[in-house]
Amino acid sequence: MNSMKIVGTGKYIPDKKIDNDNLEKIYNLDKGYIKKVTGIETRYYVENETLDTIAINSVKDLIEKNSKIEIQKVGIIIATSTTINNVMPSLSFQIQKYFDIKNCMCLDVLAGCSAFINALDIAQKYLTYSDIDYALVIGAEVLSINNYINDKDKILFGDGAGCVLLENTGQEKEYFSLIESISQNNDILTCDKNNNLYMDGKGVYKFATTKTVENINKLIEKADENKENIKYIIPHQSNLKILEKISQKLDIKMYTNIRKYGNTFCASIPIALDELVTMNEIKEKDKIILLGYGGGLNLGSILMEV
Amino acid sequence: MNSMKIVGTGKYIPDKKIDNDNLEKIYNLDKGYIKKVTGIETRYYVENETLDTIAINSVKDLIEKNSKIEIQKVGIIIATSTTINNVMPSLSFQIQKYFDIKNCMCLDVLAGCSAFINALDIAQKYLTYSDIDYALVIGAEVLSINNYINDKDKILFGDGAGCVLLENTGQEKEYFSLIESISQNNDILTCDKNNNLYMDGKGVYKFATTKTVENINKLIEKADENKENIKYIIPHQSNLKILEKISQKLDIKMYTNIRKYGNTFCASIPIALDELVTMNEIKEKDKIILLGYGGGLNLGSILMEV
Repeated sequence: MNSMKIVGTGKYIPDKKIDNDNLEKIYNLDKGYIKKVTGIETRYYVENETLDTIAINSVKDLIEKNSKIEIQKVGIIIATSTTINNVMPSLSFQIQKYFDIKNCMCLDVLAGCSAFINALDIAQKYLTYSDIDYALVIGAEVLSINNYINDKDKILFGDGAGCVLLENTGQEKEYFSLIESISQNNDILTCDKNNNLYMDGKGVYKFATTKTVENINKLIEKADENKENIKYIIPHQSNLKILEKISQKLDIKMYTNIRKYGNTFCASIPIALDELVTMNEIKEKDKIILLGYGGGLNLGSILMEV
Repeated sequence: MNSMKIVGTGKYIPDKKIDNDNLEKIYNLDKGYIKKVTGIETRYYVENETLDTIAINSVKDLIEKNSKIEIQKVGIIIATSTTINNVMPSLSFQIQKYFDIKNCMCLDVLAGCSAFINALDIAQKYLTYSDIDYALVIGAEVLSINNYINDKDKILFGDGAGCVLLENTGQEKEYFSLIESISQNNDILTCDKNNNLYMDGKGVYKFATTKTVENINKLIEKADENKENIKYIIPHQSNLKILEKISQKLDIKMYTNIRKYGNTFCASIPIALDELVTMNEIKEKDKIILLGYGGGLNLGSILMEV
């Protein structure tokens, strides 16, 4: 059973554009190396902004794009980020406060880079099985600040925020999710609370190009759906080579924007979703698959009718 | 609709007992001051232990107490803590890894000191409305280490962990929840990711003795239940004066153990629940109310048939 529908999306990308030339000079890399290895051409860094402000800006964008939205009707706010600055009040509470939303439940979900999938799945449960009418789900990251990411890894990451507003329409829509945590080998991708990030590139590549494909194949089987009916896979944007490999193995069209924004962790799926919705590339009744994977290790996909 | 049932509980309290005499000397307080103001007589601090190990120890206690439990059947692990050490893999994933649980979804929830209520409510949704059969929900805190809590506030806090295992029985049981976030005034209780804690005692007292009572009265009305049928309120253990005030206003029996453990934030409700279950003070078919409140500000209660 599912009666959740996407009402609107929003995103916020900071102004400060960082291109590869600059980073290749700083980190003493050959010209063209970054694009060749990661597919990334630019990424954006915050300046005088915080996790809270960029998340709030993405919600402002959602409201601006969707003039009929009554943000006061939101009954649950779920935020996701790996670059949290406060444990309490956590990000979701700061969003509630900024927009002065009453009668609302707030929580943040930690589940690695793919926490947005968990958050959306929780929102679906509350919308379909409680008296809540609207849910706001946010992914935001400020990876460029307040962190000790290895220099070599800095070329991969960007800052940004994205959000989606969902409604309980009371009408049945296709929805299936498959979230699997695989912690046995989880030291290949870790991040402590000071944002000391460690990544075993080869290990992550292997995980991300095999387990994701198995997960989506199981999801499609669970949904008794045909690949041909899926308009887009909207994946976590980790690395263009990983994404091309997944898309090739599954033979389903995939949307990528990593060349513009880099890897924005929890923000990557809602930013991509917002771009497709804004370009009118996905419309009501289209079927899409959202795919998350990353630290935890965590892995999850959602097949949903828009 | 609800088909969730408590199967077992567990807790872990570290060995290092800290009594008031010691703290009153350190912080230059009159003898008897701490007990008079807070109701706390002792609290326990970790030694050479981490958030992960004390949470794992609480699950070991659950397994030891309930010989029939097959922990491998757990399909969702939800952990809560304000004293997180890793953003990814977060606590729930470390628990999955330790017990080598396959086919399981892991996530951590941040929602202040009352996140355990949110986590239990999410578990209820997954057990009742998905194919997951068992859920493990944990609250754990290591407030004595890795923090910069004001000396004056140190007298209040203790370390510990508690957990509950829940089953989807397929049989209807009474369950109602009411979770409300009230962020407008949320600077009265804050904690950044380095555990710099700030608390406005008077503001928290006012919030905790008024909004909680309103929340529980609304919950009882929503459930169309009689106060007389509630065997215990099992509250977050923040301060004995707050708890006595809430109990007096509501005229419902309340379980307190703050004199032994101090305020253990996210761990306080599952520790109290474990004590009552272990003492056989709550049994199958009893009706209880769990009450959480704290930073966010967040507030939530659950009325459930055991």
